[in-house]
Amino acid sequence: MSGSIVIAGLGPGSETQVTPEVTAALAQATDVVGYIPYVARVAPRRGLTLHPSDNRVELDRSRLALEMAAEGRRVVVVSSGDPGVFAMASAVFEAVEAGPLTWRAFDIRVLPGITAMLAAAARAGAPLGHDFCAINLSDNLKPWSLIEKRLRLAAEADFAMAFYNPRSKSRPEGFAKTLEILKTICADARPVIFARAVSTPEEEIRVVCLPDCTVEMADMRTMVIVGSSTTRIIARDGTPIVYTPRSVPA
Amino acid sequence: MSGSIVIAGLGPGSETQVTPEVTAALAQATDVVGYIPYVARVAPRRGLTLHPSDNRVELDRSRLALEMAAEGRRVVVVSSGDPGVFAMASAVFEAVEAGPLTWRAFDIRVLPGITAMLAAAARAGAPLGHDFCAINLSDNLKPWSLIEKRLRLAAEADFAMAFYNPRSKSRPEGFAKTLEILKTICADARPVIFARAVSTPEEEIRVVCLPDCTVEMADMRTMVIVGSSTTRIIARDGTPIVYTPRSVPA
Repeated sequence: MSGSIVIAGLGPGSETQVTPEVTAALAQATDVVGYIPYVARVAPRRGLTLHPSDNRVELDRSRLALEMAAEGRRVVVVSSGDPGVFAMASAVFEAVEAGPLTWRAFDIRVLPGITAMLAAAARAGAPLGHDFCAINLSDNLKPWSLIEKRLRLAAEADFAMAFYNPRSKSRPEGFAKTLEILKTICADARPVIFARAVSTPEEEIRVVCLPDCTVEMADMRTMVIVGSSTTRIIARDGTPIVYTPRSVPA
Repeated sequence: MSGSIVIAGLGPGSETQVTPEVTAALAQATDVVGYIPYVARVAPRRGLTLHPSDNRVELDRSRLALEMAAEGRRVVVVSSGDPGVFAMASAVFEAVEAGPLTWRAFDIRVLPGITAMLAAAARAGAPLGHDFCAINLSDNLKPWSLIEKRLRLAAEADFAMAFYNPRSKSRPEGFAKTLEILKTICADARPVIFARAVSTPEEEIRVVCLPDCTVEMADMRTMVIVGSSTTRIIARDGTPIVYTPRSVPA
């Protein structure tokens, strides 16, 4: 007996950004597992059981999904954005590695989605059009010292930077320290994008120069994208365009 | 008079990974502009003019698109993957910035797509499940010294790394130097993924430990993903699973 399981990315919020392969997997599922607000995006229907669960129980959720797959159910684990970027795919593979050897024989498919940083970048222009990095600013699962080290090296490398989970009520300090570090190291007026709730009715895009950034511009629904030293602003009526040119002169 | 233009990502190759908003934009287009193999992915129909052009003429292509938009045509500029990641969005904005002021008033929409690194990561497991960076290894538009600096700092930051354009016939040396630098700095057997032609019938996924990587494992259709020091391999029959855990212990 061999189970199968799909780990699918729902994109940032709009149904128009869900890929057809994800829609097809959901249509064939018997069980959908995931964080409450993401499972809420899947329409209920006969024959489909929804298994919403709370934040921070990713491993329990993964084991539930794998156990149901072992019983022959067609399980889809849903993530917002892309499941491989700070989302459920790594959690499921952690459970696979720690679990019974039979789980390794499952047909496990990861279906990519539009991750938040690329949806946010698209709304602002093309700030990630040159080399860039993606950093999860939450220190729930790694020491703050590692985040700080990565910020310093990323600034030195002159990467554009996309920050996931910049700020939460339980971690008010990290984003303040992040801004302080970047203001000191970069020491320029490069553009920063605060993209909140991208592709939903609550979407807000704000472009601010680095020295003017403040902590309260971000919350847990915000992607923050910091330009590199070459990132440019095209002024116009309304929100400016932010893009990073393809070239860096020698 | 105000024009409108869409810059759309077609994803890595499979039609099942094209978002509905991109499909809708193509259905309404009067003109599709892009690199020959990407325009070839758009089905011809009455009322649609296809404008395929060769590689390395991105600025000319962007100006053509903007000029047609100014005439009131519904232009879609297509990229493979995501248009904001080493693709056409930055080129169009370079043309906008250098062009007549009227172009800035256009309604310019970037529609994100599944970028190659995320499609490749999904096929391999979840190698980008923790902090990572994306580097274009082509030195057509930037000095090699900058690439080398970024590689060294990214390794020091212990990012997983995704490499676009690792190797071409005109640039045989860069990827050899890249492997040499990483083997020296990382000095471990971390997994490297060579993902060729992902989501097409020619797809090949190969997982190799860093010391065993050789230059000819990559070509221009290959995405290379190098794990961080924490990236793990789950052995099993067939291609192993590669993933980066969500946690880094203090």
